[in-house]
Amino acid sequence: MQPELSETPDRRVFLFKKGQSAGRKEMKWLLGGKGANLCEMARVGLNVPPGLTISTEVCEQFHDCGGALPEGLWDEIMEALKEVEEARGQKFGDVDNPLCVSIRSGAAISMPGMMDTVLNVGCNDETVKTIAAKSGERFAYDCYRRLLSMFADVVLGLPHAEFEEKIQARKEARGAKFDVELTAEDLKGLVEDYKGVFAKHNKELPQDPFEQMRMGINAVFGSWDTPRAVKYREINGITGLKGTAVNIQSMVYGNYNDNSGTGVCFTRNPATGDKKFFGEYLQNAQGEDVVAGIRTPLPIAQLQENFPKVYEELVETKDLLERYMKDMQDIEFTVQDGELFMLQTRNGKRTGQAALNIACDLVAEELIDETKAVCMVEPTHLDQLLHPQFEDPSGYKDKVFAHGLAASPGAAIGQAVFTAEDAEAAKEGGRQVILIRQETSPEDVGGMHAAEGILTCRGGMTSHAAVVARGWGKPCVCGCEALKISATDKTLKVDNDGTAIVINEGDWLSLNGSTGEVILGKQAVKKPALEGNLGTFMAWVDKYRTLGVLTNADTPEDAKIARDNGAEGIGLVRTEHMFFSSPERIAAVRRMIAAMELNAPGKDEALEELKGYQKQDFEGIFEAMDGLPVTIRLLDPPLHEFLPKEGSPLEMLCNQLAGELHITSQDVKGRLEGLGEANPMMGFRGCRLGIIHPEITAIQVAAILEAAATVGAKGVCAHPHIMVPLVGAQQELEAQAKVIRRVAKEVSAKMGAAVEYKVGTMIEIPRGALQAHKLAQTAEFFSFGTNDLTQMTFGYSRDDAESKFLPRYVKDGILAAHPFKEIDTEGVGELIKLAVERGRSTRPDIELGICGEHGGDPASVAFFHKAGLKYVSCSPLRVPIARLAAAQAAIKAAA
Amino acid sequence: MQPELSETPDRRVFLFKKGQSAGRKEMKWLLGGKGANLCEMARVGLNVPPGLTISTEVCEQFHDCGGALPEGLWDEIMEALKEVEEARGQKFGDVDNPLCVSIRSGAAISMPGMMDTVLNVGCNDETVKTIAAKSGERFAYDCYRRLLSMFADVVLGLPHAEFEEKIQARKEARGAKFDVELTAEDLKGLVEDYKGVFAKHNKELPQDPFEQMRMGINAVFGSWDTPRAVKYREINGITGLKGTAVNIQSMVYGNYNDNSGTGVCFTRNPATGDKKFFGEYLQNAQGEDVVAGIRTPLPIAQLQENFPKVYEELVETKDLLERYMKDMQDIEFTVQDGELFMLQTRNGKRTGQAALNIACDLVAEELIDETKAVCMVEPTHLDQLLHPQFEDPSGYKDKVFAHGLAASPGAAIGQAVFTAEDAEAAKEGGRQVILIRQETSPEDVGGMHAAEGILTCRGGMTSHAAVVARGWGKPCVCGCEALKISATDKTLKVDNDGTAIVINEGDWLSLNGSTGEVILGKQAVKKPALEGNLGTFMAWVDKYRTLGVLTNADTPEDAKIARDNGAEGIGLVRTEHMFFSSPERIAAVRRMIAAMELNAPGKDEALEELKGYQKQDFEGIFEAMDGLPVTIRLLDPPLHEFLPKEGSPLEMLCNQLAGELHITSQDVKGRLEGLGEANPMMGFRGCRLGIIHPEITAIQVAAILEAAATVGAKGVCAHPHIMVPLVGAQQELEAQAKVIRRVAKEVSAKMGAAVEYKVGTMIEIPRGALQAHKLAQTAEFFSFGTNDLTQMTFGYSRDDAESKFLPRYVKDGILAAHPFKEIDTEGVGELIKLAVERGRSTRPDIELGICGEHGGDPASVAFFHKAGLKYVSCSPLRVPIARLAAAQAAIKAAA
Repeated sequence: MQPELSETPDRRVFLFKKGQSAGRKEMKWLLGGKGANLCEMARVGLNVPPGLTISTEVCEQFHDCGGALPEGLWDEIMEALKEVEEARGQKFGDVDNPLCVSIRSGAAISMPGMMDTVLNVGCNDETVKTIAAKSGERFAYDCYRRLLSMFADVVLGLPHAEFEEKIQARKEARGAKFDVELTAEDLKGLVEDYKGVFAKHNKELPQDPFEQMRMGINAVFGSWDTPRAVKYREINGITGLKGTAVNIQSMVYGNYNDNSGTGVCFTRNPATGDKKFFGEYLQNAQGEDVVAGIRTPLPIAQLQENFPKVYEELVETKDLLERYMKDMQDIEFTVQDGELFMLQTRNGKRTGQAALNIACDLVAEELIDETKAVCMVEPTHLDQLLHPQFEDPSGYKDKVFAHGLAASPGAAIGQAVFTAEDAEAAKEGGRQVILIRQETSPEDVGGMHAAEGILTCRGGMTSHAAVVARGWGKPCVCGCEALKISATDKTLKVDNDGTAIVINEGDWLSLNGSTGEVILGKQAVKKPALEGNLGTFMAWVDKYRTLGVLTNADTPEDAKIARDNGAEGIGLVRTEHMFFSSPERIAAVRRMIAAMELNAPGKDEALEELKGYQKQDFEGIFEAMDGLPVTIRLLDPPLHEFLPKEGSPLEMLCNQLAGELHITSQDVKGRLEGLGEANPMMGFRGCRLGIIHPEITAIQVAAILEAAATVGAKGVCAHPHIMVPLVGAQQELEAQAKVIRRVAKEVSAKMGAAVEYKVGTMIEIPRGALQAHKLAQTAEFFSFGTNDLTQMTFGYSRDDAESKFLPRYVKDGILAAHPFKEIDTEGVGELIKLAVERGRSTRPDIELGICGEHGGDPASVAFFHKAGLKYVSCSPLRVPIARLAAAQAAIKAAA
Repeated sequence: MQPELSETPDRRVFLFKKGQSAGRKEMKWLLGGKGANLCEMARVGLNVPPGLTISTEVCEQFHDCGGALPEGLWDEIMEALKEVEEARGQKFGDVDNPLCVSIRSGAAISMPGMMDTVLNVGCNDETVKTIAAKSGERFAYDCYRRLLSMFADVVLGLPHAEFEEKIQARKEARGAKFDVELTAEDLKGLVEDYKGVFAKHNKELPQDPFEQMRMGINAVFGSWDTPRAVKYREINGITGLKGTAVNIQSMVYGNYNDNSGTGVCFTRNPATGDKKFFGEYLQNAQGEDVVAGIRTPLPIAQLQENFPKVYEELVETKDLLERYMKDMQDIEFTVQDGELFMLQTRNGKRTGQAALNIACDLVAEELIDETKAVCMVEPTHLDQLLHPQFEDPSGYKDKVFAHGLAASPGAAIGQAVFTAEDAEAAKEGGRQVILIRQETSPEDVGGMHAAEGILTCRGGMTSHAAVVARGWGKPCVCGCEALKISATDKTLKVDNDGTAIVINEGDWLSLNGSTGEVILGKQAVKKPALEGNLGTFMAWVDKYRTLGVLTNADTPEDAKIARDNGAEGIGLVRTEHMFFSSPERIAAVRRMIAAMELNAPGKDEALEELKGYQKQDFEGIFEAMDGLPVTIRLLDPPLHEFLPKEGSPLEMLCNQLAGELHITSQDVKGRLEGLGEANPMMGFRGCRLGIIHPEITAIQVAAILEAAATVGAKGVCAHPHIMVPLVGAQQELEAQAKVIRRVAKEVSAKMGAAVEYKVGTMIEIPRGALQAHKLAQTAEFFSFGTNDLTQMTFGYSRDDAESKFLPRYVKDGILAAHPFKEIDTEGVGELIKLAVERGRSTRPDIELGICGEHGGDPASVAFFHKAGLKYVSCSPLRVPIARLAAAQAAIKAAA
């Protein structure tokens, strides 16, 4: 982010008044967003209340010289102020015809919550009387008391609560509910009350308006470096700014009389994107009154009826602004005594639907080109368009009875069931269900697939439930620890702020997997709208992106969905998910483990059976991805993950093995427990399994290549890329590559056809990244496994970190971003860049991609584009989002 | 390791005969160790059987041209052979006066097990008759049958077992036990039997002696690249060699007649180092006969009586060789018909005691200088000198009934006890005990301290038992999985090859913590001998080293031992060990945890109590380390490690908390279990604890600085270095540093004295290493925690890896060395080098050290020296070893 060069390098104060300003909208780095747009509006002739913007560079100088305004600045301000006075026909500090101003901050990037504002600067004991005489006492003293409390808070740092107490007391005395019910007398009294608070702290409001202004400016500049603001920028990763600008603008009042009013409008409908003027206004009112909700605002169309001339001018203005800003505008205006003033314009916030439609319409209207349109739709907009959503998320807030982790996005509704079997039975009976479990295990997959959504009370973002659900694009809320689930009673209990809520089997529930909310009853859901402009838009996206987008998919069904969403191949097939996908398969895996680890009989038969299952799956996947690459990761998780943890499945396994091994069931249990690990994440998994048990690698490779040959005979073009996981040393990869090559020769001989394949590795261990030049001697491709790479580079076990300290780290700004959501460009990113460079040093044409969950995160995708990767791979439903992020990254990099 | 430049760059064949050779002892890179020393001995006029060495460069050329001898080489060999023939007065291949030769490999670095040898080359059906006529039939056919079987094995690769069967059959027919009992007739028949084996495989021994020689040379060169040899070099990290040399040497025979013999001698006593000629010989015998143990060799002194002239020549020769080689020599000689031949000389293997004494004596004799002496004593020698050892480890082999991990070195004897309480009671009663536990826990520390040694059946090299025992220098064998321990019955059972062995309470046991052996009964132990030459030697060591040596110590006692061993400060105080060191402390820790994690009352009291304990410990440590730096790591392990795992301590804690929290004991248990983690190694530990619970950091810092001020008032000079563990991000360190600075101000105010301290961090997370330039903005020192850094860089959980795959990785050469014993210079080492460079880029004078267990490993210390660290820190008992390794690294780097 580089500031634009200022055309007026020496200018520090930018006057704006109708038809005149040295400031322009492109200068927001120097003038802040608010100031730049005020200058722009004034410059192009809109009726902006005249004022001046002091540049962000002054803020830097202010702090450099320890909190003082730089020399000569005051004179420049006074000079500009003179022009403001002339334009308004009033004089700042003049008792007979006083001008009042507002003083506001405004940085180049919006920082809500740290913006300091002082209104009505210029009021004092004398000028308030003039204003009262001209505009009424209530109005005048309301202005004055506002100045007093704002000045106390922002400039002097007096305790705001003490002012609150005073107004509260006045309201009670009056029997009033709202501030506006206070009378002129009350407000006059309040001014005295407020002065009392000042006096109590040995302070006073300067009666000299210029002193008020000077102190106000200092306070706004000073607010840039408060701990609150510093932390805000840290947390939001805002860097490279010089400071805040200060805007001093003459006050206008929508509550001046009945010929006055205030409003907010959008140049197009922010919910739908329809090209229709949209907004609302209040007659004889101030902006704050809209917020306070005392009166219901009127639709903007009403303005046409009531103030046709003002309306006409407003329509002309909003058209002009949209053409100028080349985007849908969010505009604030005030009418004072029949005169329309423009107070603010900015690009309007919008829904996903609106973003898409506006972008397409603006291209059709030739206001913007395609690249601009591509950058105008945010990835979160697209996400909204692609997942089923609740129709009215604000409408169900009172029915939310628990919160968990937003583990897999989307909306789901169904009747509660508490076992996988019940879920499957319900599905067969045509019912929609939500599967509720303490935590899920491999035995539950059938029921999970049958359910509309999954709810668990244990496990984090990488728990079994979360991973499986995301893979299927099925809404899931997990780690919802407040829930007390009884699978035997088939009930869910939760204490909701003292009220015990009980959900029984068959009760309707709704899950919001995008927010983690668990909601009572059956909330209305809307389907994703894929028609219309989306096709056009995605074609632009693909035209401008250079980064490929592949998908992570473990089944032919997922592969098909992903291909429909535009995936150009599969970047990650997790073969272990195939092992989980039916009871027969799990049983075979367990027989294999028992044979390998406990010397039970039947290893070869179990391996052969597993090979058969996998071959079948791979055939389906190759067919779905005909002509495209399919990257298959060899078995990755520790074997003990396939064993039952407790309950009857464990007992059954122990009894069966006890018979086969001629030892007691208790001894079997002890030996199975011995397979557990202290830190399974860094234990006996990945290629370590394949090196100690090369027969596992061998059957997997045979299944892959036999499947490729089988579908090949039917004319399908399969491109298997065999990926060795968790490699940290060259010899590991070489040892596994030897097994792969040997099996390939055997399959080739057996099937009577040459099999084409590539061998590569995951880069997911820090040492693997550092040794990339050596790994690339064997690997034809690298795929960065950014989940594990992040875990090990930071030394964070993701699930433990999520539940123990990571949320606090992100909240407190210890980390700038959540490293499992947005790639850590400094640490993990450096390892990726090193590995790219080193891998290419020994194999210049090495294929480079990323298959971690970061592949679906826009900020991360931008990093991967810059790092020079060939593709990102993400879940099937995030493919369009990754395509968009890739296009935006390419456009921004080219700009 | 660079080869010396050859003075004769074109020479490929080096003749050696008495008084003449172009080879020298310094040329072992070109001639191999054996060849270089043979050339040297010949050159200086010793009576070496004449022969020739073909250089290692030829081996490289041999492989470069696909396994053929380079052009012209054969002629050079023949030319040299002519001189050998002349010198011996025999002719190779001549029927009337045949010369026989041996063909042996010999690389620059000894590789036992891959060395191929063919003896008696030149024998055939004709020459054997000549030899028989001259030296007797038995001798001649014995030579011939040896050639046949060696040639078959080494050159032709025929199955050795088939030759074994034949000789076995002959021995059975004769009723003989040993080969030597076979008669001339038997051996003649055996030659025919052997030829039959050749024929069965369609092979034959070439009758042309030159063809025998050519094939023999090819076989020896070829053996350089066998998978066995390649793997051996990989495993032992032998790189940079060109290949093996080939030595062709005329045969001499100690079994020629009664005026012949063979022997092995050492120039000094290899057990004690005494400067006394030491060795043994056999009359009328071959070297092999000594090995076969048929006759008892005679002491070398007997030679003086029996062959005074030979003895005199041998004494002169050994003196000459020692002066020449400047080290104690291991010499092989043969006497053939009254003539003394020197067959080999090399630096002799020796015990630690001998190594020390020889090094000191050689300096006194002005044969070598101090740097040479320092490099002559190996760290393992010093280790032998410093730990109590069993007097006769070979004598107890039949009493070893179990093997575990050699977790903490040294010898321990004691009576079996099965509970910590029993161990403490026994100690008070003046008894020596061995504590035997399933695994140890914090509750056991008192008993562990009371015991002479610790034996567990669960847990790896970083288990609680192992870590605590190493810290105390107490012998420990852990992970001894064959043991069945019953703490209730107070028995230990083990199946020892079918025999059930039962150890009851009170039975005597011995533990060898250096080998992992568990031994029946009370074996004799000898104390370390610290007197004599050791002081002199260690003074030289300190004179030449530049790397500082600090210690890891958690108690004043350890600190004192380490200082006595030469430690220059403490590089690591693990404060958590203080939390474990008494039941009161553990109780306080648990109250703190219950308060923090479960909102139980009493947090402040628990913290205050812990602060008191720690302050007391720190005072003792500061006093012991008066004037030296003391580096204190803030709390590191996950809090749940302090909780009881099961049994009555857990029940008691649950009951107590249930009362305080007004919930059921079962609920408490559930909540305590919720504190557990999936991967605690990468979970809520290190500075993450201090960031979420800054009050823990605060009391630790207060304890440290108040202790420093308290002892300071007594005139002790304390230098606390406060170390923040597990830092991966700059903000983590900065957040903890803020707490430290705040507390320091408070302590300063409270104690009325300025407190001096430094703030630094561990570099033990890959991201910490990568971000070193940022961390160094806050950190005044870095200490590399190479244990965790190795775990995370490789993605290995050490304990899981040790039990599941790491031993296989090292054995199969997947990894060149065990990364937790010897620092991985490529991966982990690169991160260390990066961090050193980056840390210095922002703080040039940053203090750099290492406190992982690698600090005590010599190869790793050499790496740390090169990496430019200021110090290594290791356990108190390894301090002298680290000093030695540091000195050797400095001397080698300067050479």
